[in-house]
Amino acid sequence: MTSLKNDIFIKTLLKQPVDRTPVWMMRQAGRYLPEYRATRAKAGSFLDLCTNPELACEVTLQPLERFDFDAAILFSDILTIPDAMGLGLYFSEGEGPKFKNTVRTQGDVDKLPIPDPDTDLRYVVDAVSLIRKNLQGRVPLIGFSGSPWTLATYMVEGGSSKTFQKVKGLMYQQPLVMHKMLDKLAQSVALYLNAQIEAGAQAVMVFDTWGGLLSTEDYNEFSLNYAKQVRSLLKTNVDGTEVPTIFYTKGGGLWLEDMADAGYSGLGLDWQTDIANARSRVGDKVALQGNLDPISLYATPEKIREKVKIILQKYGQGSGHVFNLGHGILPDVNPEHVKAMVDAVHEFSPQYHL
Amino acid sequence: MTSLKNDIFIKTLLKQPVDRTPVWMMRQAGRYLPEYRATRAKAGSFLDLCTNPELACEVTLQPLERFDFDAAILFSDILTIPDAMGLGLYFSEGEGPKFKNTVRTQGDVDKLPIPDPDTDLRYVVDAVSLIRKNLQGRVPLIGFSGSPWTLATYMVEGGSSKTFQKVKGLMYQQPLVMHKMLDKLAQSVALYLNAQIEAGAQAVMVFDTWGGLLSTEDYNEFSLNYAKQVRSLLKTNVDGTEVPTIFYTKGGGLWLEDMADAGYSGLGLDWQTDIANARSRVGDKVALQGNLDPISLYATPEKIREKVKIILQKYGQGSGHVFNLGHGILPDVNPEHVKAMVDAVHEFSPQYHL
Repeated sequence: MTSLKNDIFIKTLLKQPVDRTPVWMMRQAGRYLPEYRATRAKAGSFLDLCTNPELACEVTLQPLERFDFDAAILFSDILTIPDAMGLGLYFSEGEGPKFKNTVRTQGDVDKLPIPDPDTDLRYVVDAVSLIRKNLQGRVPLIGFSGSPWTLATYMVEGGSSKTFQKVKGLMYQQPLVMHKMLDKLAQSVALYLNAQIEAGAQAVMVFDTWGGLLSTEDYNEFSLNYAKQVRSLLKTNVDGTEVPTIFYTKGGGLWLEDMADAGYSGLGLDWQTDIANARSRVGDKVALQGNLDPISLYATPEKIREKVKIILQKYGQGSGHVFNLGHGILPDVNPEHVKAMVDAVHEFSPQYHL
Repeated sequence: MTSLKNDIFIKTLLKQPVDRTPVWMMRQAGRYLPEYRATRAKAGSFLDLCTNPELACEVTLQPLERFDFDAAILFSDILTIPDAMGLGLYFSEGEGPKFKNTVRTQGDVDKLPIPDPDTDLRYVVDAVSLIRKNLQGRVPLIGFSGSPWTLATYMVEGGSSKTFQKVKGLMYQQPLVMHKMLDKLAQSVALYLNAQIEAGAQAVMVFDTWGGLLSTEDYNEFSLNYAKQVRSLLKTNVDGTEVPTIFYTKGGGLWLEDMADAGYSGLGLDWQTDIANARSRVGDKVALQGNLDPISLYATPEKIREKVKIILQKYGQGSGHVFNLGHGILPDVNPEHVKAMVDAVHEFSPQYHL
């Protein structure tokens, strides 16, 4: 395969010297881009788009044509694994993802298969290969998965939730059932990410969107434990090249010390966490990714530049910072504001890499 | 007025020695109690219940008949102030609070009056007097208000929100308008809480439900600053008796050091924050209140007892811990499970006060 023309994202995660801070954006391929909306209209539904490797490839590459991003991220959904387990993922407009079947008993858990990525999630693996090929080494491709805990929340609740009382109820009432389910999910996530790596993903990220809803001890027991298990099963050495890994818990700012011990190369930070404080707490153990408030992109380009400056300054000197938002971009942001953010990272970050 | 028969809640907030850990519960007067539902049915709507001092008094006292709580909290809504400012609060079933009018421009802010509690919020002041009288010194009465930032989020959004993009957009685009609004709200909240104190509230709590949605610097500038302003305006010495104050930011666990400098007697902790870690960070500056995960109350009474034990143990020896949930109780919890929690605090806490 073609060697990378721009590898500052990879080097930064491995804490090797670079000459500026790399930048990409969670949900960078998405509804805020008119070209995405056009492809989506062509595809039909959101799921039709996810399951069509050619179209998934097309939208993955779109943001790179507009912005100087230093990485591409596979366009997919975080709920592909439960769908492949037979839960029947669907989207009802305005309400987010839903499952036809839920998992709430020992019997339900026993019945869950561990999906074989090469058959059950072939469309994702194919999309990864195709994107990697089409990138032609321009920037690295990030593969991803939801974390075991986050996948479990949707599988028990049957969709998203405000209070997560069903999944937390199960966790408190039948912790062993929950552990069995999380173990199956950890195995499935690792297989899935390994298949993405084999197909060409040059870094992988695990999204723990709902870990922040847990108490400290429950987070350790039910979320972080399984993120560690996933990490331990990942095959991150590809012909002598290291595939860096990122773990992100939204609302996890209180637990960075524990997260830094989970074995990942980098930690994603939400926007509530102060990145200077985060760096002082994790030291040199891991790289950090983040963490502009997605809502800042509603501000004027001038204000956005100021906010970027502050985050770069807070992280300070040296490699180990991947600039990103603290969560995904919202659908109605003006693309020009994204450009202001990206350009500001290019302009202001070299001074921190002298 | 009658002197207090049980003052361990007050003493704990002032870090004076007590012989066990006091306990009360956010939303302890609420839908999980059949007697509450009966009174609510008699009242008509939720707002009819809030605005009727006799019925508000009735539901405030109900949980004390069932459980050995060490404090009563005024039954009211956090949005009484914006309603008194003329925004037209209403509740649409299943959707939470809404306002007929929103506040989004300099002109909107200029028009906002600062409510006079003795006239514009008379029903609250009357409820406080009545509850205090009916308590007959059994336990102290807590008054409360939403924080300026939290009130502002509802006033700008016109209700609750998932992303808070309107209020955060205003904050980023027109920070001076936001500051003007927050200043008016801080003055209004202080007047409101002072009126509650004058009417008989023996402690007051400020709920910053949505401060946790901000970045660290925005939290300081737009939420904590105004919580400090409120505190500085409170008249907490009533004839030589100190009225303790509590400040709670849901999602504020990262910022406890700054919160501890805001002048409040105690900080409320959400359930994500580890209370041992919290105590080590705030030292002896403030008392701590919390922080059982409300969802734990779905577990078995036995499991609840274990969870209570862990929190008591984590806080450790000495006064300064008020036991509570980390957020309000959910409507469908079995009251017997609340009893298990309260009884466990009574049973296991004396050993930490020897």
